[in-house]
Amino acid sequence: MSTRPPLPKVLAFDVFGTVVDWHGGIAREVQALRPGVDGNAFALAWRAGYQPAMQRVRSGELGWTLIDDLHRMILDDTLPRFGLQDLSETERRHLNKAWHRLDPWPDVVQGLTRLKQRFTITSLSNGNIGLLTNMAKRAGLPWDCVLSAEVFRAYKPDPATYLGVARVFDLEPSQVMLVAAHQDDLAAARACGLQTAYIERPLEFGAGQPKDVSPNPANTWHARNFLDLADQLGCA
Amino acid sequence: MSTRPPLPKVLAFDVFGTVVDWHGGIAREVQALRPGVDGNAFALAWRAGYQPAMQRVRSGELGWTLIDDLHRMILDDTLPRFGLQDLSETERRHLNKAWHRLDPWPDVVQGLTRLKQRFTITSLSNGNIGLLTNMAKRAGLPWDCVLSAEVFRAYKPDPATYLGVARVFDLEPSQVMLVAAHQDDLAAARACGLQTAYIERPLEFGAGQPKDVSPNPANTWHARNFLDLADQLGCA
Repeated sequence: MSTRPPLPKVLAFDVFGTVVDWHGGIAREVQALRPGVDGNAFALAWRAGYQPAMQRVRSGELGWTLIDDLHRMILDDTLPRFGLQDLSETERRHLNKAWHRLDPWPDVVQGLTRLKQRFTITSLSNGNIGLLTNMAKRAGLPWDCVLSAEVFRAYKPDPATYLGVARVFDLEPSQVMLVAAHQDDLAAARACGLQTAYIERPLEFGAGQPKDVSPNPANTWHARNFLDLADQLGCA
Repeated sequence: MSTRPPLPKVLAFDVFGTVVDWHGGIAREVQALRPGVDGNAFALAWRAGYQPAMQRVRSGELGWTLIDDLHRMILDDTLPRFGLQDLSETERRHLNKAWHRLDPWPDVVQGLTRLKQRFTITSLSNGNIGLLTNMAKRAGLPWDCVLSAEVFRAYKPDPATYLGVARVFDLEPSQVMLVAAHQDDLAAARACGLQTAYIERPLEFGAGQPKDVSPNPANTWHARNFLDLADQLGCA
């Protein structure tokens, strides 16, 4: 990481896991509805359906489908496994929108606010625009722009998403940096010519399942959290 | 306007003319480049090419084209008529991005900030996402979300744009209100079931060409400016 390229103009952030704590939020909301449920296991099970559901869209088996709708399909499949098949339609709709109500990690709002002084900051999430906007409004995320797979009608890691950010801002791919807590997302962005910053989120899967957060030298930057990234990028 | 529907959840704002002063901004920028030019006439001429250019996209004569690119096509046609055919490529690129650097009307930032306390506020402009984001960042427009014709791949007044806002937020059309200084834009939104608010911008075309801003009772609200709208909608 000794010969870094010039600083990018735009920082594009992965959201689930990188910006917000989906595991803690989903566990909390399902336990609020049904206190006896294992919130940890439920959150992991719901999230485990995420990549397979998107894969059905990527493969063409499903037409273009928003994450809100994919979340609902997975939810309906998951509920019986937790003895929750009795949840009403109203409860299911409410629980499905728990993804709109996830809390940011503690460093996020201050970190984004500092980074925004120097860079254009945008989401780049597979979450739909409405979900990301509702989340940002509730949590106070100061995005300059809400970009989503919905804008590009393609899910990460499709190159159309990473290159789409550069195109939206009339920039070269190297003038955009993806910020994410997932090495596979970063690798796909790097293959498109973007800069990459890895963020450690050791508790993404809950306290019981600590995650490997060791550095990959292929990333342009490696930071403990958004405040550390702001420090490293010179944002006061 | 005596039996108004319940307040909407989302306010979607037209941008050019409603939020920002395109006439003043374009006139200022061309005169900065070439002090002898009639900035007023130049701004009106450039803008006059806007609807015909979008019509070429709507009709299918042109494939999907971003406003930045349409603006550039119109600019190249307009320059010779003002003796500006000698502008370099660098100067043309800079001038074309004057649309990213337009100033808001004086009431806008405070008005949006107040409206944002109660409503989700988004742009709904034919301008592209990059243009709108750069404009918002420079001017301090506190959008919750940047929606554009680019998201829907259709230009207003195509119903796909107005109904697209409702779809993005999983709302009924009547839960969205278009805020605009143009009766034709509002009429198209109304035909899709949206609520509408007219904003007086008497100087949109410059001091020399005052605009008729008389009320149309078909609109849900009529306001002098964004502060007046915030007052009427009960936003402290």
